[in-house]
Amino acid sequence: MRDISKIDTVRFDSGKNAIIIIDQTKLPGELELLELRRQEEIIDAIYHLKVRGAPAIGVAAAYGAYLAAADAGEDFESDFKRMTDALIASRPTAVNLSWAVEQMRSVARECKNTTRSETLARLKAKADEIYTGEIEASKALGEHALTLLKDGFGILTHCNAGQLATVRYGTALAPLHLGKERGMTFKVFTDETRPLLQGARLSAFELNADGIDTTIICDNMAASVLSKGWVDAVLVGADRIASNGDCCNKIGTMGVAILAKHFGVPFYVLAPTSTVDMSVKSGEQIVIEQRNPKEVTDMWYEKRMAPEGVRVYNPAFDVTEADLVSAIITERGILRAPYEKSIAEMMREIIK
Amino acid sequence: MRDISKIDTVRFDSGKNAIIIIDQTKLPGELELLELRRQEEIIDAIYHLKVRGAPAIGVAAAYGAYLAAADAGEDFESDFKRMTDALIASRPTAVNLSWAVEQMRSVARECKNTTRSETLARLKAKADEIYTGEIEASKALGEHALTLLKDGFGILTHCNAGQLATVRYGTALAPLHLGKERGMTFKVFTDETRPLLQGARLSAFELNADGIDTTIICDNMAASVLSKGWVDAVLVGADRIASNGDCCNKIGTMGVAILAKHFGVPFYVLAPTSTVDMSVKSGEQIVIEQRNPKEVTDMWYEKRMAPEGVRVYNPAFDVTEADLVSAIITERGILRAPYEKSIAEMMREIIK
Repeated sequence: MRDISKIDTVRFDSGKNAIIIIDQTKLPGELELLELRRQEEIIDAIYHLKVRGAPAIGVAAAYGAYLAAADAGEDFESDFKRMTDALIASRPTAVNLSWAVEQMRSVARECKNTTRSETLARLKAKADEIYTGEIEASKALGEHALTLLKDGFGILTHCNAGQLATVRYGTALAPLHLGKERGMTFKVFTDETRPLLQGARLSAFELNADGIDTTIICDNMAASVLSKGWVDAVLVGADRIASNGDCCNKIGTMGVAILAKHFGVPFYVLAPTSTVDMSVKSGEQIVIEQRNPKEVTDMWYEKRMAPEGVRVYNPAFDVTEADLVSAIITERGILRAPYEKSIAEMMREIIK
Repeated sequence: MRDISKIDTVRFDSGKNAIIIIDQTKLPGELELLELRRQEEIIDAIYHLKVRGAPAIGVAAAYGAYLAAADAGEDFESDFKRMTDALIASRPTAVNLSWAVEQMRSVARECKNTTRSETLARLKAKADEIYTGEIEASKALGEHALTLLKDGFGILTHCNAGQLATVRYGTALAPLHLGKERGMTFKVFTDETRPLLQGARLSAFELNADGIDTTIICDNMAASVLSKGWVDAVLVGADRIASNGDCCNKIGTMGVAILAKHFGVPFYVLAPTSTVDMSVKSGEQIVIEQRNPKEVTDMWYEKRMAPEGVRVYNPAFDVTEADLVSAIITERGILRAPYEKSIAEMMREIIK
């Protein structure tokens, strides 16, 4: 099998004029690359988690918006809006998706009086900038996080906020990949992360491929592992961070944060600043995507494993309140409570 | 499909000279009865969770010991010991199994100077007593628990401590079945309970069959459900209770207890007194069964869902510390903290 650390999770191939992604629904069994060109293909890939992870979705959406512009007809403005609206709607919770599309729209607006080819060139350059920025952010974020970890640490992580959730390195897993390069050892426990098993399939895959000691547990075993003193730090990503520091992430993150607090283990959220949504005052305002009940009752299974007629509650995310978060680590540094203040200060720096 | 509420989970058929169980590995797809006669069949059924749930295992083991006695050769004492040792070893954590076997051994010891047929008759009578006692205990326990619940309550449960874990009624789910008979309504959330999905397959099945409003959630969604105020009480069973009130139950129970405390929701453990092990001072002394990693990485799946080479931690149980338990409800009444005192008093009453 190809070495996953050498492959970008999402990138653009100008020769093929297509987005190239690792099809994450095929992992860990097969490492397969997909070429996405048509809008339906891109939206399908995002909705069905062929490409997933807030930062990776952002990059895919940026190139998706570029391809939308290339496909737009005579009425560019209306076509471009319709197609990029559909991109945003493909997954409502991760802010990086709408953030990336908004960046692209802003360039399109600036190009009102330029030629179509000039508009396309500038959109492509913007998407490339988002792609490159994402790689740099993951690496910088990993460096900051590494200052909080020691050689030999036991780590608990949930879902996949690794290289497969970004272009390279990852967010929550970036310090582990970087630390490994420098000869550090970690003992990582990865929640399998039901219903779609991103932990068992993706985090375990990329950590194991990188030679990091990895143990898969069912989500309900996290308390047992924490109670035994095997975990020195919990590392998770985020899909949207409110201005008060409430962190929206994969369903189950809130529970892990409560357990970490109970056992006195630091709980760190690692995410690029593009994940912060200053328009959202607290987690309560974040729209939580509800997904297909079959993900819980049927998917991955040979047969239906739940009786017919029962209800299913299948939210894709939950919100961890800021007071459970020991630190938020971005590419610009480590934020501590009170987050209203530390986040506002950081965002003011960015705007400068 | 047959009405499950009319079928005992485990019983003895004297005509067939066999233990009849509902094969729980086939649920919810098929409601299939199995006849167990040979020791290997009984041990296989217990190890592979065809019959499971601490009280149901106790009844199966009692009849298993009776059949062992019937199969014993010339050297009754040594044969009986060997076969009943193997029964106890089939699952080490639930105390009801060894408790039931010890009850049977005690009868066998009393029969030292009687004929083989008289010994068998007395062993059969003892197993019947354990079976009948189990049914009465579940019902009485359900009645006591019902005094703590109100019509319309939201309930969260983990694993299956229902009729399928006992002979009838259940432990944690007994008050729900009894309340339903009296026209009460509940809204029940059942953790799917990885890796073997007893919640999604069994609790959802029996609650749904009884017309109780049931919603399946993945284990990692419990925090989300609790945070929304949808749960008025958590009801779980136990496989072994230490004399200080530490409760050993299905893996994940400890995490639910910590979440319940965080959200101020009462956490009730429902179990017959046969679950109390006075020889165990605290949860730390309880042996936790470690099960096959394939339960996490492969079982139920069409294909392996985890990369080769990673480790798996797969404990079947965890221990909830007594201070997280709002009450322990047995067939003899409701115990409150300090449990060292309340449990000791109850056990003294039983010995009288």
